[in-house]
Amino acid sequence: MLTKEVYSKTCERAVEYLNKAGIVITQKEKNEMEVAEYGLGDVENIGLELIVYVNTDRCCAKELILFPGQTCPEHRHPPVLGEPGKEETFRCRYGRVYLYVPGEPAKNPKAKPPRGSEVYFTVWHEIELSAGEQYTLAPDTLHWFQAGAEGAVISEFSTKSRDEYDIYTDPRINPAQNRKV
Amino acid sequence: MLTKEVYSKTCERAVEYLNKAGIVITQKEKNEMEVAEYGLGDVENIGLELIVYVNTDRCCAKELILFPGQTCPEHRHPPVLGEPGKEETFRCRYGRVYLYVPGEPAKNPKAKPPRGSEVYFTVWHEIELSAGEQYTLAPDTLHWFQAGAEGAVISEFSTKSRDEYDIYTDPRINPAQNRKV
Repeated sequence: MLTKEVYSKTCERAVEYLNKAGIVITQKEKNEMEVAEYGLGDVENIGLELIVYVNTDRCCAKELILFPGQTCPEHRHPPVLGEPGKEETFRCRYGRVYLYVPGEPAKNPKAKPPRGSEVYFTVWHEIELSAGEQYTLAPDTLHWFQAGAEGAVISEFSTKSRDEYDIYTDPRINPAQNRKV
Repeated sequence: MLTKEVYSKTCERAVEYLNKAGIVITQKEKNEMEVAEYGLGDVENIGLELIVYVNTDRCCAKELILFPGQTCPEHRHPPVLGEPGKEETFRCRYGRVYLYVPGEPAKNPKAKPPRGSEVYFTVWHEIELSAGEQYTLAPDTLHWFQAGAEGAVISEFSTKSRDEYDIYTDPRINPAQNRKV
């Protein structure tokens, strides 16, 4: 759980990164910003700020904001209701993000998993995205990502988002409790 | 048809608008920019510049660039291969765009159809989008749009794009010939 104070400060900080990225949002979108803290109470290290632009039965677009070193924990999007899992493209708009997926592990990975949670980060094939670069994840692919020293703003283009079905490697995380503070 | 010279100049000009919008693209994306001139030979008035970020079987994201007063002609995305037509969200990132759809016609519309093509613009319900504002079009909805005096950069989030099936009101336009100069 986030307190209202932490939620407000986190959102204000996220808006600063959107400004750095030159991304304009409405007051309504600002008011409806979501903070995912995954029930771990350590949002500055394990967390994600997001604005959902659209999420219909067929497609979804979001803006994701990560503070410097902030990490979105390892998870995958499984098949749901007879449909393949969520397909996602991450396009870095500002800063830099280190994205990890299954495959040949990086010898000297540039991201570090949050202290105390190392065991819940199991895929280490590194994809580095700077502004203007993007990567498309096939459905049901394990992945996690962390911002570099300048933070990151990432546009996500995907099929329908159904966060409550996401499967996290860390058993402490219950997706149904992630969102909407 | 566009000449190589007009194509190059159009792309260079489009990049200036992306810069104004603070949108970063790679050199490869710049090289692969598409210019739609709809076979009408009047790209400054009836045309659209675009970068396709991703277009899979399930979803699609593009950046659309419109010069001041440039118009994307009226069309719709019909059902294809047993699927509903393309669903599109237009999010204005820079400038202003006037979008027209079926419904109560604007009394004093802010856009003017290109001279000589007035008869091919039949829907007049006006939606005005400034930076940070967006609109989602249901599949198979007739629509056209024109940039305001500062031009416009628009992110499009949608289901799969199949331009060759688009149906234009103007019979001179053959979608199969629109793209890829």
